[in-house]
Amino acid sequence: MTDRPQTKDAANSMWGGRFAAGPDAIMEAINASIGFDRRLYAQDIQGSRAHAAMLAAQGIISDSDAKAIGEGLLTVLSEIEAGEFPFTTALEDIHMNVEARLKKLIGEPAGRLHTGRSRNDQVATDFRLWVRDQCDAAISGLQALIRAALSQAEAGADWVMPGFTHLQTAQPVTWGHHMMAYVEMFGRDLSRFQDARRRMNESPLGAAALAGTGYPIDREATAQALGFDRPMANSLDAVSDRDFALEFLSSASICAVHLSRLAEELVIWSSAQFRFVSMSDKWSTGSSIMPQKRNPDAAELIRAKIGRILGANVALFTVMKGLPLAYSKDMQEDKEQVFDAADHLMLALAAMAGMLSDLTANRDRLEAAASTGFSTATDLADWLVRELGLPFRDAHHVTGSLVAMAEEQGIDLPDLTLEQMQSVHEAITDDVFSVLGVHNSVASRQSYGGTAPDQVRAQIARWKEKLA
Amino acid sequence: MTDRPQTKDAANSMWGGRFAAGPDAIMEAINASIGFDRRLYAQDIQGSRAHAAMLAAQGIISDSDAKAIGEGLLTVLSEIEAGEFPFTTALEDIHMNVEARLKKLIGEPAGRLHTGRSRNDQVATDFRLWVRDQCDAAISGLQALIRAALSQAEAGADWVMPGFTHLQTAQPVTWGHHMMAYVEMFGRDLSRFQDARRRMNESPLGAAALAGTGYPIDREATAQALGFDRPMANSLDAVSDRDFALEFLSSASICAVHLSRLAEELVIWSSAQFRFVSMSDKWSTGSSIMPQKRNPDAAELIRAKIGRILGANVALFTVMKGLPLAYSKDMQEDKEQVFDAADHLMLALAAMAGMLSDLTANRDRLEAAASTGFSTATDLADWLVRELGLPFRDAHHVTGSLVAMAEEQGIDLPDLTLEQMQSVHEAITDDVFSVLGVHNSVASRQSYGGTAPDQVRAQIARWKEKLA
Amino acid sequence: MTDRPQTKDAANSMWGGRFAAGPDAIMEAINASIGFDRRLYAQDIQGSRAHAAMLAAQGIISDSDAKAIGEGLLTVLSEIEAGEFPFTTALEDIHMNVEARLKKLIGEPAGRLHTGRSRNDQVATDFRLWVRDQCDAAISGLQALIRAALSQAEAGADWVMPGFTHLQTAQPVTWGHHMMAYVEMFGRDLSRFQDARRRMNESPLGAAALAGTGYPIDREATAQALGFDRPMANSLDAVSDRDFALEFLSSASICAVHLSRLAEELVIWSSAQFRFVSMSDKWSTGSSIMPQKRNPDAAELIRAKIGRILGANVALFTVMKGLPLAYSKDMQEDKEQVFDAADHLMLALAAMAGMLSDLTANRDRLEAAASTGFSTATDLADWLVRELGLPFRDAHHVTGSLVAMAEEQGIDLPDLTLEQMQSVHEAITDDVFSVLGVHNSVASRQSYGGTAPDQVRAQIARWKEKLA
Amino acid sequence: MTDRPQTKDAANSMWGGRFAAGPDAIMEAINASIGFDRRLYAQDIQGSRAHAAMLAAQGIISDSDAKAIGEGLLTVLSEIEAGEFPFTTALEDIHMNVEARLKKLIGEPAGRLHTGRSRNDQVATDFRLWVRDQCDAAISGLQALIRAALSQAEAGADWVMPGFTHLQTAQPVTWGHHMMAYVEMFGRDLSRFQDARRRMNESPLGAAALAGTGYPIDREATAQALGFDRPMANSLDAVSDRDFALEFLSSASICAVHLSRLAEELVIWSSAQFRFVSMSDKWSTGSSIMPQKRNPDAAELIRAKIGRILGANVALFTVMKGLPLAYSKDMQEDKEQVFDAADHLMLALAAMAGMLSDLTANRDRLEAAASTGFSTATDLADWLVRELGLPFRDAHHVTGSLVAMAEEQGIDLPDLTLEQMQSVHEAITDDVFSVLGVHNSVASRQSYGGTAPDQVRAQIARWKEKLA
Repeated sequence: MTDRPQTKDAANSMWGGRFAAGPDAIMEAINASIGFDRRLYAQDIQGSRAHAAMLAAQGIISDSDAKAIGEGLLTVLSEIEAGEFPFTTALEDIHMNVEARLKKLIGEPAGRLHTGRSRNDQVATDFRLWVRDQCDAAISGLQALIRAALSQAEAGADWVMPGFTHLQTAQPVTWGHHMMAYVEMFGRDLSRFQDARRRMNESPLGAAALAGTGYPIDREATAQALGFDRPMANSLDAVSDRDFALEFLSSASICAVHLSRLAEELVIWSSAQFRFVSMSDKWSTGSSIMPQKRNPDAAELIRAKIGRILGANVALFTVMKGLPLAYSKDMQEDKEQVFDAADHLMLALAAMAGMLSDLTANRDRLEAAASTGFSTATDLADWLVRELGLPFRDAHHVTGSLVAMAEEQGIDLPDLTLEQMQSVHEAITDDVFSVLGVHNSVASRQSYGGTAPDQVRAQIARWKEKLA
Repeated sequence: MTDRPQTKDAANSMWGGRFAAGPDAIMEAINASIGFDRRLYAQDIQGSRAHAAMLAAQGIISDSDAKAIGEGLLTVLSEIEAGEFPFTTALEDIHMNVEARLKKLIGEPAGRLHTGRSRNDQVATDFRLWVRDQCDAAISGLQALIRAALSQAEAGADWVMPGFTHLQTAQPVTWGHHMMAYVEMFGRDLSRFQDARRRMNESPLGAAALAGTGYPIDREATAQALGFDRPMANSLDAVSDRDFALEFLSSASICAVHLSRLAEELVIWSSAQFRFVSMSDKWSTGSSIMPQKRNPDAAELIRAKIGRILGANVALFTVMKGLPLAYSKDMQEDKEQVFDAADHLMLALAAMAGMLSDLTANRDRLEAAASTGFSTATDLADWLVRELGLPFRDAHHVTGSLVAMAEEQGIDLPDLTLEQMQSVHEAITDDVFSVLGVHNSVASRQSYGGTAPDQVRAQIARWKEKLA
Repeated sequence: MTDRPQTKDAANSMWGGRFAAGPDAIMEAINASIGFDRRLYAQDIQGSRAHAAMLAAQGIISDSDAKAIGEGLLTVLSEIEAGEFPFTTALEDIHMNVEARLKKLIGEPAGRLHTGRSRNDQVATDFRLWVRDQCDAAISGLQALIRAALSQAEAGADWVMPGFTHLQTAQPVTWGHHMMAYVEMFGRDLSRFQDARRRMNESPLGAAALAGTGYPIDREATAQALGFDRPMANSLDAVSDRDFALEFLSSASICAVHLSRLAEELVIWSSAQFRFVSMSDKWSTGSSIMPQKRNPDAAELIRAKIGRILGANVALFTVMKGLPLAYSKDMQEDKEQVFDAADHLMLALAAMAGMLSDLTANRDRLEAAASTGFSTATDLADWLVRELGLPFRDAHHVTGSLVAMAEEQGIDLPDLTLEQMQSVHEAITDDVFSVLGVHNSVASRQSYGGTAPDQVRAQIARWKEKLA
Repeated sequence: MTDRPQTKDAANSMWGGRFAAGPDAIMEAINASIGFDRRLYAQDIQGSRAHAAMLAAQGIISDSDAKAIGEGLLTVLSEIEAGEFPFTTALEDIHMNVEARLKKLIGEPAGRLHTGRSRNDQVATDFRLWVRDQCDAAISGLQALIRAALSQAEAGADWVMPGFTHLQTAQPVTWGHHMMAYVEMFGRDLSRFQDARRRMNESPLGAAALAGTGYPIDREATAQALGFDRPMANSLDAVSDRDFALEFLSSASICAVHLSRLAEELVIWSSAQFRFVSMSDKWSTGSSIMPQKRNPDAAELIRAKIGRILGANVALFTVMKGLPLAYSKDMQEDKEQVFDAADHLMLALAAMAGMLSDLTANRDRLEAAASTGFSTATDLADWLVRELGLPFRDAHHVTGSLVAMAEEQGIDLPDLTLEQMQSVHEAITDDVFSVLGVHNSVASRQSYGGTAPDQVRAQIARWKEKLA
C-alpha cells in the first residue's frame, strides 16, 4: 500500500526472488496504482456524486438510484476516513476499489453510476481536483510565508546590513529591504499558482473514454457542482491533457528556487564567520559539548527541496514527451510525481514560515558588517558628481584618494574631517557627510523601490493591504 | 563571436593548447559575454535612450547631452544593423561595446548616460525586454499554428478516423475533432505566454547596483517609455530576479511537449503501415530509388525540440538554485539558454504550422482504419442500456455475442441483419443501426466537446471568433 | 512510516491544519528520515557488526562487549524481518532506532558500539552497501533480459522484417538482428553497472564525523568484512561523497532509455496497423467486447519509467550542486531518489524480460512488410556498381528505371524478368536475382555485424558464451 | 554558420518575418546541420581516409582512386584549417560539404568513396571520434587540476582550518586534507572518463545504412586505423546508439558537480566575513573605489557550469527517449548538446586549475577560525573514554563542564590548567593536553585517510606516483 513496488530489501535477498510467483506478480506490481492513487479518494467520491446527481437530473438514471449512490458513496468516504476501508491491490486502482465497495453496499444501482463516463475522464477529473486543491494549499502557504517575511521587514525596516553582490559587500541596504525582496518573489509565486489554478479549472467529466457520449448528459452541471468554471471543450484533449500537472510543477519549481536562495542565505548567515542571524532551537540542532554549534538543519533541507521538485517536473515532462493521443498508460506515472512535489513544497513553505518567524537577526553584526570595506564609497562618488558636477572619471579619482587616505589611517570615510577631504578636492562641503556612513547611505536611496527605510515601509504597507 | 569558447577542434590539437597564452586567455574565455549578449543590442539601446530622456526630463543631465546621447545611440543601432559595428571581446559585453562606441561618437556626454543606473539593472532590463519580445513571438507563432490546425479541422470535420487509446483503436472520432484537441493545447500555451508576459512586464531600470539611487530619477517614466506596466517594487529583487526567464522556459517546455505529441503522431501516421497522412515534399526527404519512401524529417526534428528546451529549463533552474542575493556572476549563464530555447521554439512552431498547412490526410485510409476491430461495439452496448434498459453486464454479454457472430462471418457489426441480432436478443429494433457504423457512432456523440461533427464545427467557430 | 510527509488528503481539510501542533510537528516532518531510511536496516546492522568485531580485534572494546553487540544486532535484524520491530519517528532515523533497541536488549555495551565512528560515516556506509546491492540486482536483471532477447533472436535469426529509418522501411533486416541490437545496448548497460560497482566499492567506515579518529581502528579490516575493495582514502570525501548514487542513477537512466526504445517499438508493433507482434494476455489488457483490442499496458509503463529515473537523477544532481564540504543536511534527500529509481528499474527490467519471453512475432506480417516499397532497390544498385562496375550515378539511374517499371506493373523487383531488366541495361545477368528479394538481400549483408543470418547467429553464439 | 537559426533580433522586427521566403527557408533552418556539425571536419576526413584505404586494400576500389581520395581529403583538411573552405548551407551538413569539395578537386573517384558505407555510419563514426577526443581532453584537464590541488595540499599539509558540517565548525582539519578530498573526487571523474572512453571505443564504420553491406569490406581494418578497439557487433545498434554521448554527458555532469562544490567554497571563503583565501587579480574583478572588494567572477561562473552541462544531459536523454530503431532525424539534435557541454567543461577545468594555482590561503585566518567554538571538545571527550575508560555519557558530562568553565573565563580548552581540569574530574592527567588545541587534534587523527598531516602527506605521495 505504499507508493513503491513492495520489494524485500534485505541485503541477502535477490530482487528476482520477489517474482518467484512469475509474470502475474510482476504485472500486478507494475500495473496497479492503488498504492498511490488512493490519495484521490475524496476527489473520486466528490466527482462520482456530482455525476450521479446529474444523471438523475437528466433522467438518465432514476432518482432513487441516484440517492442510493450518493448515500453509498458517503458511507465509503467515512469508511476511508476512519481507516476502515478494505483497500485491495487486486482491484488495481482507487476507482475500482470505491466502485466495488459501493456495489457491495447498495447492490445493482452501483452499476449505473458509470453511465456516460469512463475511467479516462474519471481519473482526469479526480486528479485535476486534487491538483487544484494543491494550488489552494500553495497559495495559503505562500500567504503565511509572506506574512512572516513582512514581520521581519517591519521590525528591521531601518536596520542596516551589507547589500551583497558576488557575496562581497557592495552597498549598505536595510534588513527590511532584503526581506521585502523575498516578499516580491513569493508574491509572484502566488500569482503564478493563481493563474495555473484558473487555467486548469475546467471539467474533463463527460469526455467519457475519449469521444464524448451519446447519453444526454449535462457537462455544465457537473462542472458547476465541482467548482469548475466550465467543461473542457474537446473530449480527446480532456482525457489526454496533463498540462495542469506540468504547470503546477513548473510553478512549484520556481517557488522552490526562491526557497533555496533564502535557505542558502540563512545557512551562510548562521555560520560562525557571519553570525548575521540566530536560528531558534526549534529549527536547528545543537551539540551537547560544543555550545556555539547550531546546525541549520531545516534551512538545509528546504534548500534541497528544489531537487525533488525539479526532478518531478523533469519526470513528467519526459513521460509526456511524444505520447500520441488520447490516453496512454504511460500517463499513470503522473500522480506520484505531483504528490511528492506538492507534499514537499507545502512542507518547505510551512518550515520556512516557521523558521522566519522565530529568526533573530543580529542587528549589531549586520551593521558592523555593512560599515566595513568603505561600502559608501559609491555614495561619495555620486555626491561629487551630483553636487559638484564633477565628471564621473574625476569623481572616481577623488573618491579613490579619499578611500586611500582613510585606509591609511585605519578609519572609515565618515571619520575623515572636512579639512582632510578638502585637501583632496577643495570644493567639498559639509554636506558630503549627509551621504557618508551606512545610515545616511541607505536613507539617501529614495528612488522607487530603493533601500531607504521610507521606501521599504511603503512597500510593507502596500503588501499588507494586498493581503488583507 | 559565437556563443561558445573558441576552441580549435582538430583531432590532433590538445585542448590545453588553446590556453598557451595562460590565465588571461582562460579568464577572457570564461568571463566575456559579448559572444552571445550582442543579441541584446536593440534592447540595450532602447533602454539607454529611455534612461537618457528621463535623466534630462528630471534635470539630472542637460537636454543637449540627452540629445547627443539619443542620436549617438541611433547611430550605433544603425551600425550594428548594417553589420558594420566593430564588436570586440576586450570590451566584455554588449553594454560596454555600445558605451565605448558612443563615447567615440559623441565624446564626454556619453559618460553621463550611466548616471543613476548600473550594469546590474541595465542587463536585467535588456534581457527582460528581449524575453518579452519572445513571448510576443511565441503568441504570434501559436496563432499561426492554431489557424493551420483550424483549417485542417474545418476540412475534415466529419472525416472519420480511429480514436486511439494505447495506440489501439478505441472508438471512431473525426479528423476535425482530433485536430481541435491540439487547438485546445496550443490555446492554453498561448494563454500561458500571455500570463508570463503580463507578470514579467515590470521595469528593473533604476534599481541601480542593487539598492536604488540617490538621484531623483523617475522610474515610472522609464517604465512607461519601455512599455512596462510599472517599475519593479524592490531594487534587490529587480537585479537578482530571473523568474521571467524561468517562466518563459517552463511555458516553452509545455508547448514543446504538445509539439512533440503531434509530431510523433505525424511520424507514425506517415509510416507505410498507417499511411494516414502524406507529407508534402517540402517537409520530408525522399529516396531517389525507393519511390514510396518519404522521411518525415521536419516532424522528427520538431519532436526532438522538447529535448533542448527542457534542457535549457533545467539548466537555468540549476544555475539559480541557492544563489544568495543580489547579483552573482552565475546569472550570466542565463541568456544562452533562453536564446537557444526561444529560437528553436519559434522555429518548431513555424515548421509545424507549415507542415500542417501542407498536410494531406488520407481520408479513405482513416475511415477504413476506424471501421475495423468492431470499433462501434461500445455504441451497441450503450444502445442496449439506453434504449432497452438492459443492465450493463447483460448489455456487454449481448454485444459480445453479436461481435462473435460478426467475426465468424468476417463482417462488421452494421452488416448483421436485424434478424441475426434479434436471434441474440429479441428486443433489438431497427433503431440499433442508427448507432452502428462509424459515421453513426460519431454523429451520436453529441455531448459538449464530443466528436460529433456538429460539436466539432461549433468549437471551430468559437476559436475563429476568439482569434479574430 | 511512508516516504512522504503524512498529510491528510481529504479535499476539505486545510493542509495547514496538519501543523496545528506548531513548529515541532513541521520540524519533525521535514527532519525525520525513518520513514524511508528504514530500508537500510540490513546494511546498518551489517556495518555495525563489522565495526564491533574490528573494535574488539583492535582491543578497543572487550570481546564480551563485542559478542553482546553482535548477538544483539542479530536479534534486532530478526525482529525487523519478522515485522515486529517498534519503529518510532521520535528516534528520527534507522540508526537511532536500531541503537535504541540494542541498548534495551543488551544494556551498557551498546554505548560502546559508536566508538571511533559517527553518524556521518555510518550512513555513508549503509547507503553505499545498499546501492552496491542494487548494482548487483541490475546486473542480474539485465542478464535475464539479455537471455530473453537472445531467445527471440535465435528463434528468428532468419525471419525477415523491415529495417526502419524515420519509421520508414529502408532495407530488410532480420528479426534476430533487431533483437541483437538490444542485446548490445543491454550489454553496455551491464558493463556500466559493473564499472559503477567497482568504483563505489570503497569503504567510508572509520572516516568518523569527517576528520578520521584518534582510536587505533583498522579500516582495512572493516572494509574487507563488508566486501569492499579498500577503505576510502580521504575522510572528508568519505562523508561528503554521493558520486556512487549519481553514477548509479546515470547508468540507470541510460538503461531506461534503452527500455523506452524497445517499449515504444512494442507499442507501435502491437497496433492494428502494424500487427508485427502479439503480446500475451499476461502483459496486456483486453476489452470484453472488442476482441482484437489488446492494450500494451506493460510496454507503455516501461516506456514511461525513464521519466521517474531521469527525474531522480536530476533531483540528486540539483541537491548536490554547490554543497560545501563535508556533510550538509541537504544530503538526506539522496535516498528516496535512489530507492525509487532502483525499484522501478528492477521492475521494468523484470517486466520487459517477461514480456519478451511471451512475445509472439508475426513472421508473415514482418516479411510482407519488408517486401513492400522496393526495399531491395539499394541491393540492386549496389549489384550494378559491384558487378558491372557502373558509376554510382548510372547505377541509380538504372535502378530508378527498373523500379518504375515494376511499380507500373504492380510487382516487386524480383518479379521482373531478366529480359525486362536487360531492356534497361543489357549487361545485367541472371546473377542479379541473387540480391533481389528480401531473403537474398539479408543473406548478402555479410559484413561483420551485418544482418545476414550467419552474422546474427555468430553474435548470438558470442553472447551465449559471454553469459555462460 | 552559427549553431542557431539565424534570426534577426531587433526588437521591432517580427520573428515571422524571418520566413517571408516561405516553407523552404523554414525547412532549411530546421534541417541543416552544417552550422554546427562542421566542427566534425577533422574526424570526418580521418574516417573517410581510413575507409578509402581499406576499400583499396580489399580491392573494392583501385589504388589510384584511393590515392586521389586520400590526397584530395588532405587538401580539404588544409583548406578548412586555413579558413579558406567555402562552407555552404545548401549542402546541409559537413559530410556533403566535404564530399562536394572533394569531387571538385579530384573528380569522378570522389564518387567511389561512399562505397560500402552510408551517411548513417559515417556520422556515427565522426561523432564518436569527436567525443573520444573530448574524453582525452577531460582526462588531461583533470590531471592538470589534480596537480594544482596537490600543490595546494602539499604546501598546507599541516595548516589547520575548520572542518565544517552544515557550514558550522565541527572539528579541525588541515588545508591539505581538504584539498585532497577534491583530489579524490577529480580522481573518480578521471576514471569515469577512462571507462567511458573504453566503452565507446568501438567502430560503427561499415554498418552502412543500418544492415551492413554486401561489399567485402574489412571493418577490423578501419577500426584499427581509427584507433578503435574493434568494430561494433551489430549494425543496427551502430547507427542508432548514442550511449557514448549520454555517458560522456553523465560523467561531465558529475564532474561539474564537484567543480560547483569547490567553487561554492571559494566564493564563501572569499567573503569579507570568512577571508580564508585571496583570489589573484587574474581570476577576480575589483572595484576602482572599494579596495577590499574582489569579486570571485571565475569561481561563480565555474559554479554555474553544472547548469548547462546537466541541461545538455537532460536534453539528450529526452531526445533519445522512445526512439524506434534505427536512425531517426531526432538524433541530429545530439551534437550541439555535447559540443556545448564539452567546451564548457574543459573551460571550467582549466579555469579551476588556474585559479587554484594562483590561490593564496590565509593561514592565520584559517587557524584562528579552527580554534574557536571549542572545536576540540570531541577530542577531550574521546580522551576521557580512551584513556580513563569513562563511559561515553560521563565523558560528555565532564567535557560539558570543562567547556562551560572555559567559556566563563573567555578562554579555549587548552588554556585551562591541569588543576582546573582535575577539579572537574580528578583522574585527568597532563596527557590530556596532547589532544587539546587544534594542532594536537589534527595530529591525533591517524586513522587511514584521516586529517593528520602524516596521513595527508601519504595520500599526496600516492597520488603523485599515480600521476607520474
